[in-house]
Amino acid sequence: MAKGKLRIIPLGGLGEIGKNMMCIEYDNDIIVVDAGLMFPEEEMMGVDLVIPDISYLKEKREKVRCIIITHGHEDHTGALPYILAELNVPVYCTRLTHGLISIKLKEHKLLSSANLRIVEPGGKIKAGRFQIELFSVCHSIPDSAGLIIHTPLGALVHSGDFKLDYTPVTGCPTDISKLARLGAEGVLLLMSDSTYAEVPGYTPSEQVVGESLDRIMDEAPGRVIITTFSSLVSRIQQVIDSAVRHNRCVFVVGRNMNEIVRMALELGYLKAPKGVLAKLEEMRGMPHDRIVLITTGSQGEPTSALVRIANKDHKQVHIIPGDTVAISASPIPGNEALVARTIDNLFRQGANVIYSSIMRVHVHGHGAQEELKLLMNVTRPKYFVPVHGEYRHLSMHGQLAENVGIPRQNIFLLEDGDVLEIDRNSARVNGHVQSSNVYVDGLSVGGIDNVVLRDRQMLARDGMVVVILTVNRQTGKLVGRPDIVSRGFVDTAEYKDMLDESCDLVAESFTKGIAHADWNFVSNKTRDILNKYYYEQTKRRPMILPFMVTV
Amino acid sequence: MAKGKLRIIPLGGLGEIGKNMMCIEYDNDIIVVDAGLMFPEEEMMGVDLVIPDISYLKEKREKVRCIIITHGHEDHTGALPYILAELNVPVYCTRLTHGLISIKLKEHKLLSSANLRIVEPGGKIKAGRFQIELFSVCHSIPDSAGLIIHTPLGALVHSGDFKLDYTPVTGCPTDISKLARLGAEGVLLLMSDSTYAEVPGYTPSEQVVGESLDRIMDEAPGRVIITTFSSLVSRIQQVIDSAVRHNRCVFVVGRNMNEIVRMALELGYLKAPKGVLAKLEEMRGMPHDRIVLITTGSQGEPTSALVRIANKDHKQVHIIPGDTVAISASPIPGNEALVARTIDNLFRQGANVIYSSIMRVHVHGHGAQEELKLLMNVTRPKYFVPVHGEYRHLSMHGQLAENVGIPRQNIFLLEDGDVLEIDRNSARVNGHVQSSNVYVDGLSVGGIDNVVLRDRQMLARDGMVVVILTVNRQTGKLVGRPDIVSRGFVDTAEYKDMLDESCDLVAESFTKGIAHADWNFVSNKTRDILNKYYYEQTKRRPMILPFMVTV
Repeated sequence: MAKGKLRIIPLGGLGEIGKNMMCIEYDNDIIVVDAGLMFPEEEMMGVDLVIPDISYLKEKREKVRCIIITHGHEDHTGALPYILAELNVPVYCTRLTHGLISIKLKEHKLLSSANLRIVEPGGKIKAGRFQIELFSVCHSIPDSAGLIIHTPLGALVHSGDFKLDYTPVTGCPTDISKLARLGAEGVLLLMSDSTYAEVPGYTPSEQVVGESLDRIMDEAPGRVIITTFSSLVSRIQQVIDSAVRHNRCVFVVGRNMNEIVRMALELGYLKAPKGVLAKLEEMRGMPHDRIVLITTGSQGEPTSALVRIANKDHKQVHIIPGDTVAISASPIPGNEALVARTIDNLFRQGANVIYSSIMRVHVHGHGAQEELKLLMNVTRPKYFVPVHGEYRHLSMHGQLAENVGIPRQNIFLLEDGDVLEIDRNSARVNGHVQSSNVYVDGLSVGGIDNVVLRDRQMLARDGMVVVILTVNRQTGKLVGRPDIVSRGFVDTAEYKDMLDESCDLVAESFTKGIAHADWNFVSNKTRDILNKYYYEQTKRRPMILPFMVTV
Repeated sequence: MAKGKLRIIPLGGLGEIGKNMMCIEYDNDIIVVDAGLMFPEEEMMGVDLVIPDISYLKEKREKVRCIIITHGHEDHTGALPYILAELNVPVYCTRLTHGLISIKLKEHKLLSSANLRIVEPGGKIKAGRFQIELFSVCHSIPDSAGLIIHTPLGALVHSGDFKLDYTPVTGCPTDISKLARLGAEGVLLLMSDSTYAEVPGYTPSEQVVGESLDRIMDEAPGRVIITTFSSLVSRIQQVIDSAVRHNRCVFVVGRNMNEIVRMALELGYLKAPKGVLAKLEEMRGMPHDRIVLITTGSQGEPTSALVRIANKDHKQVHIIPGDTVAISASPIPGNEALVARTIDNLFRQGANVIYSSIMRVHVHGHGAQEELKLLMNVTRPKYFVPVHGEYRHLSMHGQLAENVGIPRQNIFLLEDGDVLEIDRNSARVNGHVQSSNVYVDGLSVGGIDNVVLRDRQMLARDGMVVVILTVNRQTGKLVGRPDIVSRGFVDTAEYKDMLDESCDLVAESFTKGIAHADWNFVSNKTRDILNKYYYEQTKRRPMILPFMVTV
């Protein structure tokens, strides 16, 4: 009987669209599931991306056997370019995921050095003491996989992102029968997708969207513009299918979307009859009711095609009254305001906009409560760890697990960095490894720390004031009045008197001169005087930066 | 027959929770409907509040007869303290609204100077050539009113915020029969609430919430904590009623909510049997299943009671495992992330949290499509102006108006500042008055302009670098190496070499000295050099502030 211990460590995963990464360790072997990125939250000012902290993996570098990617979405693949640069281990994934990752790695000039390997669903990976088998799951991108991980202590199941959809548009339904057979043999631990654990019932089939698209194309008097994620290959297929049925041509707008469509056509994940997909240059002169455009921008991203179109800022596409725009995606939490503004601007230009409040033009890719319960029922795991989602989703998923009969003490709500230790008799949370956010800003990975972010937040709130004190080295006296530069604090013309007065206040407090030019003292005193005065005058607290020049 | 012209000018109102204000002008008379405030959007950094621009009203100061407030919500009353300070005209409103405004004006020390007058629904106001009659509407606060405004050209109807609810908790249902009679006589213009124009069907009755509250109080094993808006007096009544039925005492947490509850009890808008409302000090020792707490914080506001509780930062209330927290409000657009984080933190502390995804613990106060159509049907207006809401809501509401038979050319989608001119034959948009956002930040009203905001945005993105060049007045040469202070740009320890190098680059470019110390030239050149260098090194663009000291 195996004497080792399994260690299950989420290194990222909290968050509705989290930077997903799970570390699974047994003796001298570590495998990593997914390497996702997260988009920054509001208070992470100026940060471009957030990726998981792999300090723990780097520490145990010689143990890490591979990274397995469950599917091609950014919150599961996006950190790969940054992580492979520091930890170049083999990466396993299915064929479409491979295609998407290749596009990404090529951008980062890492494709030739990376060790990418394709595994088909049903295929097996040997990694140290682990043997991993991929199984098909249905999600909002084709070729999604869940993992069965055989370990010396028993089988683990990692669901990946999944839902049940017995009529998916492309790809296979979730392979429930394989899991049921495994469940009969015994599953030690189930890790399952919690993103929609708060939603009762079942997630609707993608077919619902197909019906909405048909209705839109049928009723639209002019052009139809559909916006979705570029990775949502099955949605693009639905648009093409519906366009064919309505004798419309499809124009793909935007570099990234074109690249993905080309790759998916080549690999056979997209199918389009000849002549349906056309180049934007060919649109001129075509009757409006024969045109469908597909673009990115469903999240209101400022540089996306749709937002440029909404702001009359796109080179090739302008809204014509009579256009119908359908937003075929839900806003990622935090993007609601950007999306709403884009919709308003499209209405302003005379488009008719169809979005989730109006018609079902999107279904998401995650199972709701009954689907989650089904997965627990067929796998019948001894232990349960809800993964993917905010803490409230993990909580709800934990409650569901209790409802289907998993004992409360066998359910573990792990936060990033928590270590779940499993031996042959028991399981418990034992310890915590480093797992903070790593911020990517411009060229720097991790070069932004919390001090820099705190400074940006403070600057954003009330701006800043630089005070320059020129001091005579011999006499210790101020030379002239201090100078002030402020930005983001007040309207400097309107507040000129106040700013002048504040210089005088500082000057007056140093009339006796500054003994030995004690900079700390001068700096603190200046800051105190100005803080107090500005707050009295404006109820604002700008960042105050005193600076001394000795002459 | 009247020869004058009516001018309808929204001075604020766009936005789901807009700074509502409508100016209605005829000859020498102006009346103003509502004076609301808006909470700042994400990019309005550091701004506390946004209020309407009343430049137009100040210009025509002698014409302004009064302000009429339709109901007591902040997006209809909140700008009053700022506006009365500049334009102290009579303010008319119903009794509860009067109570709420009084609390607000007292805070601003304006209560004694203000001219507040109570009008009951059904009551009339004479204001120059206008005669205004208030009628009851049902909304999420009692004593809400709509307005019938008789003018020399005909009757106008302003709906205020309204829904139909034939079983409201407190207050009266919307007075449809009065409007129907008016409709039979003829309505020139209907201005109607568009906030929920995208939602099909009817808004559910507040009774639905009562049923949910009963279920929560019944099933909760321990304390129940209900969070809602402090102005949502009817919800507070529902909580009290349900608590009575379940033999629980109600504890009101927070100064503002206590103040409103006291006022509403005094005015008779809240009713509580003796002994039900208790002081927080009396909670100690009471069995948990006899306790209900009501708090603010439903929007995740950082200083609210609920958020402090969720962060273990409240002096008197801490989460005890077994607590049930119900969020009885929807997040205002833009607050979704804050609310979600609060829910997560409550779960982390062992509370069971009930929110909109899980149970109907809130219904909003605005009519859905069928209610909006009903209002148009009974008033049968000649012209129609959708008010309140984002542009997409106005568009949808306009479409509904067309559907019920109002000719398209009689429907006007006005943006803030647009002037709708109506004479006895026709109506058209004619001109635009100033109506920009006025930002309140600290003590200053309007002292923040777009330059200050742009600076804050730039500082927030990539931080800033101050460069101090000390120049010898005689020789024009630099004294020593330039000094640099940076904040929010890079980790200064990690990037010390880069920052030093950047000083050298600046120094080298001025080795020949600076002729006549031409400051503009030096400043621009320094900025160019550093911009280029920093962008190459970091792909960031901090704000660069060169400063010259001559000695």
